[in-house]
Amino acid sequence: MPEFAGKAAENLRKIRASKPLIHNITNFVVMNYTANVLLASGASPIMAHAANEIDEMVDLAGALVLNIGTLTDEWVITMIKAGRRASDLGKPIVLDPVGAGATALRTNAARAILFQTWVSVVRGNASEILSLSGQNGATKGVDTMHSVNEAATEACKLARELGTTLTLTGATDLVTDGRRTLNIEGGHPLMPFVTGTGCAATALIGAFLAVDKDPVTAAATALAYFGIAGETAGAKASGPGTFMMHLLDALYTLSPEEVEARCRITQG
Amino acid sequence: MPEFAGKAAENLRKIRASKPLIHNITNFVVMNYTANVLLASGASPIMAHAANEIDEMVDLAGALVLNIGTLTDEWVITMIKAGRRASDLGKPIVLDPVGAGATALRTNAARAILFQTWVSVVRGNASEILSLSGQNGATKGVDTMHSVNEAATEACKLARELGTTLTLTGATDLVTDGRRTLNIEGGHPLMPFVTGTGCAATALIGAFLAVDKDPVTAAATALAYFGIAGETAGAKASGPGTFMMHLLDALYTLSPEEVEARCRITQG
Amino acid sequence: MPEFAGKAAENLRKIRASKPLIHNITNFVVMNYTANVLLASGASPIMAHAANEIDEMVDLAGALVLNIGTLTDEWVITMIKAGRRASDLGKPIVLDPVGAGATALRTNAARAILFQTWVSVVRGNASEILSLSGQNGATKGVDTMHSVNEAATEACKLARELGTTLTLTGATDLVTDGRRTLNIEGGHPLMPFVTGTGCAATALIGAFLAVDKDPVTAAATALAYFGIAGETAGAKASGPGTFMMHLLDALYTLSPEEVEARCRITQG
Repeated sequence: MPEFAGKAAENLRKIRASKPLIHNITNFVVMNYTANVLLASGASPIMAHAANEIDEMVDLAGALVLNIGTLTDEWVITMIKAGRRASDLGKPIVLDPVGAGATALRTNAARAILFQTWVSVVRGNASEILSLSGQNGATKGVDTMHSVNEAATEACKLARELGTTLTLTGATDLVTDGRRTLNIEGGHPLMPFVTGTGCAATALIGAFLAVDKDPVTAAATALAYFGIAGETAGAKASGPGTFMMHLLDALYTLSPEEVEARCRITQG
Repeated sequence: MPEFAGKAAENLRKIRASKPLIHNITNFVVMNYTANVLLASGASPIMAHAANEIDEMVDLAGALVLNIGTLTDEWVITMIKAGRRASDLGKPIVLDPVGAGATALRTNAARAILFQTWVSVVRGNASEILSLSGQNGATKGVDTMHSVNEAATEACKLARELGTTLTLTGATDLVTDGRRTLNIEGGHPLMPFVTGTGCAATALIGAFLAVDKDPVTAAATALAYFGIAGETAGAKASGPGTFMMHLLDALYTLSPEEVEARCRITQG
Repeated sequence: MPEFAGKAAENLRKIRASKPLIHNITNFVVMNYTANVLLASGASPIMAHAANEIDEMVDLAGALVLNIGTLTDEWVITMIKAGRRASDLGKPIVLDPVGAGATALRTNAARAILFQTWVSVVRGNASEILSLSGQNGATKGVDTMHSVNEAATEACKLARELGTTLTLTGATDLVTDGRRTLNIEGGHPLMPFVTGTGCAATALIGAFLAVDKDPVTAAATALAYFGIAGETAGAKASGPGTFMMHLLDALYTLSPEEVEARCRITQG
């Protein structure tokens, strides 16, 4: 749809012009790659989790990214503190419920964040997202056991219940706030073989939220851009290692015009 | 030896077919690279260290990887809790005693884990392994001051004393349970110039243990596969940075047949 | 200046010959890349932050690197403990005040480390360094809002006040102890698009301090070497992802002779 393609280009232009500071409280596995994805895209990442500096960091940030991988109780407390501050200031929050459904700690943490802060967008795989409904499927670690298509109807309903925008990523991606649903094509089969690609997509949604207050278009255009970069990287890669690096190169070198030309967002 | 070459291919096929979940409690330096090595090989990594979710994670996992780099007391406690759960469930554990011998904290932590849980395999450099005997050589940080060959006899004796399988990696690799000893050739001189290659080898042993209950063949075939991937990567690399990425590519692209053809495991 | 070019080559030769152990207490985002930069250069990195092993690690180390990214109160305490031990033993310390000026926690932590330990060199961007004077400019996260040139005069004065050597990196780099000032050219425009290049430069200064007791020449020659590697990497890279890897390759492959020939250090 041309309107969404134009929005993708516009959002990317705004990120590169304004270099929004994206505050991440995220897991240890992906901190480095997430920071590099944000930098390559034109945003300015900061990682900070100390309770006694969290308010100041949120004050400086254009968006807040909360990611519950490698979680402990202390981090949940800090995430909620940061999320409350962002909510008070009207700053957008994106939540990545890594491993929700796999353990009670993770499922409960994701719900606590959802219920105690104003989360603009949740991004996960299908089983992580559906675990938020209380009707848990079994999650096998951080891998998914539902396809995005299977989960679409349930996700629309759940988005309305939770009052947020849900983003399910997989072979195709879906964004829904329960009223509007967008499908995004793109990406590459090597993506699931690189740790943190999902988490990096979440962080990118944060950057897009910093320049686009509509959670549905922010999430969809972020994923379209990420997917196009994945295609570019996949064409050059000879495996997941070179793919990782070419993905950063592609995020950096893609022009807004090329993103607009290659964007594939359709209404669901 | 053809029997071990066939076993290497068989184990790799099983990992790619069953995608075993490998639960890692590992150090901050290598979390990302370890996860990427496991993904590239076909396994499914999860990193989790919170005491209040550790039992659930172990229940889901096919093997447990304990790595004592960037250690604190809290992490030792969690590692032992996870290790006890895995022991109760008969799930294999592999221990990487990073820096054992360098500080009392690390040496004592490695011993506590060995004595309080059922460790299937310990993988380290020669000086780390020998430090477990109580006859400490000086360990210079995480680098080794013993060659694998010098340490072979002592390692066999120590394996019998500790009742576990010891794996010493270096220019050549050695696996021994005190009765059987296997030598593995392969690898590349750039490997020691990439942080976490040893830790990644340990995690790979975890993946192989998830599909092969014999610790000696699981460890030897994992190292043979890793070494072959190192050779492939080394032929393409122009230094340690490109080597890192080509190693992930090679782990992903190597077929079981090629691993079988190039496997060099011999009885010691 | 030929004298500094010769010193750069000499320091690099010493690092590769003696492989000094560099003890890092650094942030989660850059631990992996920092370790790889040190390894590629010929040094031996160790990351350790547990209070109950910190003295033993400092005893083994040739230099101590303190980096306050992803900070918490516990880590500040450990950093000061490690710094005091290093000070007592006359071992060089390099401090990276990541995000100083952005939050009170970070500014206060950097000052506490400076006032309670003997810091040989502080490396940061211009706004981080100037925030140490108590005349804070606004720091936008970890990005700089002052150019190195704007900050030069103030930095000289501040170095005298603090009694340490200050290193400001940016498009050009500056090292000053308040009496001697050196300017270093080199580097590549992709460097700010890779997270942790500044932190890696700090760690490299640690390695050079381990073999060169003059903080001014150690810092300047480390930055010259890093900048030359950046130029080599930039000529091969197609974006920040491939740049990261080529930078490690260049650090590994550059000979002392080539560093000497390409070194651009001038007196300010």
